[in-house]
Amino acid sequence: MFSFDIIAQSSTTRARAGVIQTARGKVETPVFMPVGTQGTIKSLTPEELLSAGAQIILGNTYHLYLRPGCDVIDQFNGLHRFMNWSGPILTDSGGFQIFSLAKLAKISEEGVTFRSHIDGARHLLTPEKAVEIQTRLGSDVIMCLDNCIQYPAEREHTRKALEITTRWAERCKAAWQSRSNGNGALFGIVQGGMFKDLREISAESLIPFDFSGFAIGGLSVGEPVEIMLEMADYTLPKLPHAKPKYIMGVGTPENLIELVALGADMFDCVLPTRNARNGQVFSQQGTLNISNAKYRYDTNPLESGCTCYTCSNYSRAYLRHLYMAKELLAYRLNTLHNVYFFLNLMKQVREAIVKDEFESFRNNFYRNRKN
Amino acid sequence: MFSFDIIAQSSTTRARAGVIQTARGKVETPVFMPVGTQGTIKSLTPEELLSAGAQIILGNTYHLYLRPGCDVIDQFNGLHRFMNWSGPILTDSGGFQIFSLAKLAKISEEGVTFRSHIDGARHLLTPEKAVEIQTRLGSDVIMCLDNCIQYPAEREHTRKALEITTRWAERCKAAWQSRSNGNGALFGIVQGGMFKDLREISAESLIPFDFSGFAIGGLSVGEPVEIMLEMADYTLPKLPHAKPKYIMGVGTPENLIELVALGADMFDCVLPTRNARNGQVFSQQGTLNISNAKYRYDTNPLESGCTCYTCSNYSRAYLRHLYMAKELLAYRLNTLHNVYFFLNLMKQVREAIVKDEFESFRNNFYRNRKN
Repeated sequence: MFSFDIIAQSSTTRARAGVIQTARGKVETPVFMPVGTQGTIKSLTPEELLSAGAQIILGNTYHLYLRPGCDVIDQFNGLHRFMNWSGPILTDSGGFQIFSLAKLAKISEEGVTFRSHIDGARHLLTPEKAVEIQTRLGSDVIMCLDNCIQYPAEREHTRKALEITTRWAERCKAAWQSRSNGNGALFGIVQGGMFKDLREISAESLIPFDFSGFAIGGLSVGEPVEIMLEMADYTLPKLPHAKPKYIMGVGTPENLIELVALGADMFDCVLPTRNARNGQVFSQQGTLNISNAKYRYDTNPLESGCTCYTCSNYSRAYLRHLYMAKELLAYRLNTLHNVYFFLNLMKQVREAIVKDEFESFRNNFYRNRKN
Repeated sequence: MFSFDIIAQSSTTRARAGVIQTARGKVETPVFMPVGTQGTIKSLTPEELLSAGAQIILGNTYHLYLRPGCDVIDQFNGLHRFMNWSGPILTDSGGFQIFSLAKLAKISEEGVTFRSHIDGARHLLTPEKAVEIQTRLGSDVIMCLDNCIQYPAEREHTRKALEITTRWAERCKAAWQSRSNGNGALFGIVQGGMFKDLREISAESLIPFDFSGFAIGGLSVGEPVEIMLEMADYTLPKLPHAKPKYIMGVGTPENLIELVALGADMFDCVLPTRNARNGQVFSQQGTLNISNAKYRYDTNPLESGCTCYTCSNYSRAYLRHLYMAKELLAYRLNTLHNVYFFLNLMKQVREAIVKDEFESFRNNFYRNRKN
């Protein structure tokens, strides 16, 4: 079961609000998906994610395949029971991590060989295997294996990568059809680097496979933000209007708002969780670094008016103390606030779209920023 | 406000059940106090501590005095609001940490000078200052500054240390009287190393000051467990029957049960929290190390029958995976289980005392142990 309905459309931008239905519950879009790399959103429990408003989380195929391994997760009939999260899970294909984390990644038509970053063991990931692993994880939204490239990249290299991505997408579709009989969801991933015409070719070559949704991969890989937005601006309208559109691995609160304006529906990013562990906290006014000496005596919450657990109960002075003392609770409380901030931002964005007030919401958002 | 009432007495051992009343709520004894070294029980929230059954926690004067410093905690009128814990807090005097953690600790009649383990800054802690700091922390149970010694120690050195501890106790009592006007509680600490006669001298010299309760310090400092128990066995009956008796910094579940049998009412120890972070988990059957490969596919909870949050929701296989992947949630879930185990053990011990079934409880406890 998988469906997508658009329930509201901004009259002045491409922003839209929708509802994804999955067998494990609904997801209201635009949506931010917290990243659970190793079967856990770092430091948080599922109950905390739910109370922060999470509707769907992301799992990393590459990480889970290597550790603990599918044979372990099989004992639990998938990732949901293993990690105690009963809502929808989207899994990436592992492609991005293989090219960024693994060693000696080598592409062939068959798939990609690589060595584990954990123990150096050699592995081959094919499109069929990527679908198999994600199916065993019990993923509600499976992603096609794609060939991610670095930035900057030559045009010819980029073209070859998108072409193999298309051929792999076809094989993923076939593997998914035979495994799932069309239940659940499989998303295609548009590549094409920073070349508009290649992005268009990639989109057009994937559309015939009629994926459940379409992602744009290979963005936020080091390029200037203007180019990222330009690529999204150009590519998003090429994708089928009636399908959810997912920008992978992006980004800041500002990025999210701009990408929603361009018609994107789904996002994931490690920014709220990773930055929390580095002491960077998000707020309507911008970011603050909790290690800053000026918070030493500050009895205010991280963000005034915020109703998250952290802001409801703790001061900047306490959070600074925990952070300076390297206390585990510091990472947890900062993470909870940041995840809440991203989820709540998307909730507000959606409400604004539904009321057709997205543009004034966006203007207000920028007016409040101090950094 | 501080009172102690004995509500039940084992007919075959010295074990007793009591109730301590403080201005911030009651504490049922025998009680285990989780250790909040730096203003947090490592990785846990106050709500989790409450749900695990914590009634009173311990704060470390030495750590909090150095970081964040009393001037920060003053902004919150004490530690309770700073760390969001509204129940009773017992604070140690800082003595133990100065002698174990700080550098160049040097005793004089006036007090102890030392250098901070954080930044090397020089400090002088006097009995009066120890009381002042604990008062500023808003402590519900203040401990006298004592002169802790290492194990093994010469008799003469031990005698001098207990004598200065007694003189400091007198000064602490005077300082506390003038600061608190007798409200709250001040505990004296018996020293005397591993010499029974010195323990007796120490106890007798402290009794005239009529402290709210009496602690035995300087145990579990490296001596064999038999000697620790022998010292407690000898010393506990020398202390006033009507006052709570607190064995500082001890110990394992077995230690706690034996010390309860000898008449002890209060305990604190970093064992459940520290060992959790090292993957060691406590259970009725003994300890297990979650990193053990045999738990790789184990779908059982850490301890079958345990109703803690961790055991209610997660398997050994998942907890092993989190631990091997160094995920923050691992430390948190292990800690929660271990703290619950210690608190629940004391709860069961108390129920057994009330029913005068302590000895059969103790026998059962040992029968269940597998390691």
